[in-house]
Amino acid sequence: MMIIVMKQTATKEQIDALLRKIKRWGFETHLSTGENKTVIGIIGKGESLQERAFLAFEGVENVMQVNKPYKIVSREFHPEKTIVDVKGTKIGGQDIVIMAGPCSIENRPTVMKIAKAVSSRGAAILRGGAFKPRTSPYSFQGLGEEGLKILREAADETNMSVITEIMDVRYLELIENYADILQIGARNMANFTLLKEIGRSKKPVMLKRGMAATLQEFLLAAEYIMSEGNENVILCERGVRTFEQYTRNTLDLAIVPAIKELSHLPIIVDPSHATGRRYLVTPMALAAVAAGADGIMVEVHTNPAEALSDGAQALLPEDFGKMMNSVNIIAKAVGRTV
Amino acid sequence: MMIIVMKQTATKEQIDALLRKIKRWGFETHLSTGENKTVIGIIGKGESLQERAFLAFEGVENVMQVNKPYKIVSREFHPEKTIVDVKGTKIGGQDIVIMAGPCSIENRPTVMKIAKAVSSRGAAILRGGAFKPRTSPYSFQGLGEEGLKILREAADETNMSVITEIMDVRYLELIENYADILQIGARNMANFTLLKEIGRSKKPVMLKRGMAATLQEFLLAAEYIMSEGNENVILCERGVRTFEQYTRNTLDLAIVPAIKELSHLPIIVDPSHATGRRYLVTPMALAAVAAGADGIMVEVHTNPAEALSDGAQALLPEDFGKMMNSVNIIAKAVGRTV
Amino acid sequence: MMIIVMKQTATKEQIDALLRKIKRWGFETHLSTGENKTVIGIIGKGESLQERAFLAFEGVENVMQVNKPYKIVSREFHPEKTIVDVKGTKIGGQDIVIMAGPCSIENRPTVMKIAKAVSSRGAAILRGGAFKPRTSPYSFQGLGEEGLKILREAADETNMSVITEIMDVRYLELIENYADILQIGARNMANFTLLKEIGRSKKPVMLKRGMAATLQEFLLAAEYIMSEGNENVILCERGVRTFEQYTRNTLDLAIVPAIKELSHLPIIVDPSHATGRRYLVTPMALAAVAAGADGIMVEVHTNPAEALSDGAQALLPEDFGKMMNSVNIIAKAVGRTV
Amino acid sequence: MMIIVMKQTATKEQIDALLRKIKRWGFETHLSTGENKTVIGIIGKGESLQERAFLAFEGVENVMQVNKPYKIVSREFHPEKTIVDVKGTKIGGQDIVIMAGPCSIENRPTVMKIAKAVSSRGAAILRGGAFKPRTSPYSFQGLGEEGLKILREAADETNMSVITEIMDVRYLELIENYADILQIGARNMANFTLLKEIGRSKKPVMLKRGMAATLQEFLLAAEYIMSEGNENVILCERGVRTFEQYTRNTLDLAIVPAIKELSHLPIIVDPSHATGRRYLVTPMALAAVAAGADGIMVEVHTNPAEALSDGAQALLPEDFGKMMNSVNIIAKAVGRTV
Repeated sequence: MMIIVMKQTATKEQIDALLRKIKRWGFETHLSTGENKTVIGIIGKGESLQERAFLAFEGVENVMQVNKPYKIVSREFHPEKTIVDVKGTKIGGQDIVIMAGPCSIENRPTVMKIAKAVSSRGAAILRGGAFKPRTSPYSFQGLGEEGLKILREAADETNMSVITEIMDVRYLELIENYADILQIGARNMANFTLLKEIGRSKKPVMLKRGMAATLQEFLLAAEYIMSEGNENVILCERGVRTFEQYTRNTLDLAIVPAIKELSHLPIIVDPSHATGRRYLVTPMALAAVAAGADGIMVEVHTNPAEALSDGAQALLPEDFGKMMNSVNIIAKAVGRTV
Repeated sequence: MMIIVMKQTATKEQIDALLRKIKRWGFETHLSTGENKTVIGIIGKGESLQERAFLAFEGVENVMQVNKPYKIVSREFHPEKTIVDVKGTKIGGQDIVIMAGPCSIENRPTVMKIAKAVSSRGAAILRGGAFKPRTSPYSFQGLGEEGLKILREAADETNMSVITEIMDVRYLELIENYADILQIGARNMANFTLLKEIGRSKKPVMLKRGMAATLQEFLLAAEYIMSEGNENVILCERGVRTFEQYTRNTLDLAIVPAIKELSHLPIIVDPSHATGRRYLVTPMALAAVAAGADGIMVEVHTNPAEALSDGAQALLPEDFGKMMNSVNIIAKAVGRTV
Repeated sequence: MMIIVMKQTATKEQIDALLRKIKRWGFETHLSTGENKTVIGIIGKGESLQERAFLAFEGVENVMQVNKPYKIVSREFHPEKTIVDVKGTKIGGQDIVIMAGPCSIENRPTVMKIAKAVSSRGAAILRGGAFKPRTSPYSFQGLGEEGLKILREAADETNMSVITEIMDVRYLELIENYADILQIGARNMANFTLLKEIGRSKKPVMLKRGMAATLQEFLLAAEYIMSEGNENVILCERGVRTFEQYTRNTLDLAIVPAIKELSHLPIIVDPSHATGRRYLVTPMALAAVAAGADGIMVEVHTNPAEALSDGAQALLPEDFGKMMNSVNIIAKAVGRTV
Repeated sequence: MMIIVMKQTATKEQIDALLRKIKRWGFETHLSTGENKTVIGIIGKGESLQERAFLAFEGVENVMQVNKPYKIVSREFHPEKTIVDVKGTKIGGQDIVIMAGPCSIENRPTVMKIAKAVSSRGAAILRGGAFKPRTSPYSFQGLGEEGLKILREAADETNMSVITEIMDVRYLELIENYADILQIGARNMANFTLLKEIGRSKKPVMLKRGMAATLQEFLLAAEYIMSEGNENVILCERGVRTFEQYTRNTLDLAIVPAIKELSHLPIIVDPSHATGRRYLVTPMALAAVAAGADGIMVEVHTNPAEALSDGAQALLPEDFGKMMNSVNIIAKAVGRTV
């Protein structure tokens, strides 16, 4: 269903030409003439119709899609909340799930130390990058498979699950061997090749919002994955790009309750990448839980000043512990548990 | 203190010309030559120096200000938190202060009903617009002085204080007669004429962040007011403009802890204007408190569907009551009271 | 005329309640039921209706205004182009009009030198700020009336007209005494008090686009002025605020042909403030003319490195001369003259 | 070379700790103490140092990189302009190069008709998508290899070269068989896997700017490709995402002269995707040429209202012809040829 507003100056010929075309495409139309404008309603299943296509016709001023462009991810399609089960950890249920760990995997002893620090303080899922998307080709690009092994070991020893980013479709099998959740980073949110391939995986996926992605585009990216069969999709808000540059990005927390309204998928918040400054991470983590997030992903490092990437936003284990105490209280305040 | 990076291609003549000029202005310079670039440090009180001015010289690549451009609003200048006392209500102290009321003042009975509804549920300050900044000249522009009278009466009957917006310097005295806090709206944050005039008022001021204002510009706007003598400035985050249009604006909650770090001024959050959708107001109010806000400003209406402006974002009294219950619990979780 | 899309989950009661309300407001409705959604059309003169108001009703998903919210500024209302006549200089006609001068007025000899330099090279209108909107209260705020006198004198001696910014409604009469065109700066585009007051002036006005103003808001600001009776409005694009910070703002040149389509008002481009870097001014001035702008406003200074404000973006007289040569050729290429 | 500004409250211990660390990393430091702040300069080849890393240290307020993070793409490294030779068509030289064709390849007769229409009017390079990045999984995704064959044939018959998008590293060889220029779309600008792989190809590459990419990130993406050995990189500005939604994106033309200053690579402008509206394409194409672009990429369709994607922004052949006439004149005005 779609609505087309004609220009005031549109001629009868232009309107008729458009009506004929729409009928030829197999849709019914409904004409409505106001004081000085004509509005055409298109009736019928319109998934295949595109808003902008109608702007190509002479005399058209504006077009509005009545139906949402996504389906499987929507609440209307699936009224129950989706709960993603990762080896018994339920994401999207009663519990707030904590994902923590270093930005990138540097070496075995450090990762082990961090894993113990976060696991003992309540994190269920260990994060860490083995393949890193870096703005500069001269930055550390990650340890690759060696990193995956270290991460798996550290998680196994501390009874955690593993989440790690996949950047290259050719490494899907490799990463599936080590990870419990595949992460799609913000820079790849619109890498449709990757989305489709991951959609055919059996592993849960966490999809990060692109830096310039609207709510609707974010949900459509999840639709790409789900339309290929993978139903275990977790969304993650990590900040959008705005004119404000004191923080690394602008954390858009209103998207949390908005996604809960429009979709059944769980939503996690990453305050580390969003803010880029350590002292802002805990307040934003608490705010995310208060806003209704299903979990938090934070970077933790035992020696941030030595971290090979993003040390400035990594919490120290003690700070992480304090954050967990407050997360617990806020969770209760909004009827959740950790 | 300022640092100037010269282009790799800068000539000795260009560097010397710049050094001579800086010395003539009364500053000392410090030259430092790297592998392939020259860096000039300017030493001395540099408030009068402007970053962009140096880009006018040939051979200059980049300029960085070392000192912050604001002073009175900064933590360094005034390490203690500022607490603004509005007839006994302390803003910026231990208590989370709630400001509530209709978007615009429509008529006496409605405002009275709303005032009772919010006062009985914990609001200390009654909001309401008598002069409204409206994007369209054909929208309702407010009742003017008649509205101020209604607002004052409603506040007096319910033991609340009054906050209302001032848009026109010529109405300052008029509005001072009725209001306890003068509000400067987002559209006027960079109306320097208004800022200076308000700076000479004895009344507390609440300054809303402009839709495209950086953190630094926001603090500089407060500096305008304070530099004229008015020390009772309250800041208010109400969302910035981004590409995301599902919400009216994007609420930038990270600014709350950031302002607490950089400044001593109290900071309030307005989730109603930021989101523009009723169902998002309460989650964002709770998130704001969790992030450390000193108060919340929300729109409440007894019959939002009849409201002359912004009804879509107004809470019903019962919803406001529920919000207050949760605000109470979250406040405790972060060591505050309501 | 307005279109309301109901949620898929909207009940018959919600739809009926809304229909009753719309009828009570004096509008006719038109109901259209698709596969799974109901759409309500509101018929009748809807200037008083506000889109967001309908979001306040239960069951409403989305609202679209069919008619544009502005009238007097629109092409439909006034199909002929408006030509603003400033002492014989026609803005919006066949000629590309050049406004040039210093950012702020510093002293008589400098302004005189600059006026001669730009007049002799083809500028018709002399710009210069006597009252300056400055982000910091510690920056130079302008010479005030003394500056206006200098500007007037310089313009008279060189047969130019004067454009200067008005920031404070209380100075309207004062500035009218000296200026031929009143300029409303970007920071005051949504200062509705100022817009209305200027709307009652007999002087031509140049309205700069706000840094975060949409095309529609820009036109509505012009509507404010025109609805008070002043028909001599010139628009000015000077860049919008985005994440890109290499340039001071992002010049949105597509707004030039868009405004020509939607409105009858002339549109000028200011590449100096938009870019903030001297070497980008000329290419952007040429691009503006190629895009169809009715004029260019640029900052010129005989000694930019000494300028009290914005020297980095001021052209030298020789550069201005070179720019004028190219503007001439590009103007011819798009069927205009200078 | 990097400059670190310490907080006013930084202790001697914090400063010393940082100095020791920097020395241990093999860099020399230079200390400079102002009225109330300490500034540390780091001397030595600092490519491996990251700005944000230093924010992880206690007492650090701000960090500034003195050297640009990119090298091979910079003018300093390679002062001569790069001219990319595509079968004799020189991109980045004296000629403005025109790339034109349909958005996506639909069928043989249509592509052939379009190819003839654009070739006869001056286009040298035929564009067309065989694999399409689409926001919705339900939109037409392209004809795949069948599309590539059609495109190649149409180009061969009309003596044009072929440019087409590559989205999936696994199709590199396939696409190399048909294309003369590989295009990386805006959504994949930060798909570093793809950038590196393309960097090892022998084919020229056109890299489109990401919708939220800064100038620096855009150049760093090009650096990724060049650092793998592929020197034939063409940049393409196609609009960034802002709050303005009348146009599809906001075309940032100031990036054209900025890139010419900072880099030696050629830069093309795509006004079709940037504006999304047919009537804005020609004015923006002319503006791009006036701003100094090395070429224009536009969508042309013989029957835009039937186009399977993006018809609204496609020019008709006659409009393309008119655009070419004006491009010719503007090109001459800025000292170029077509």
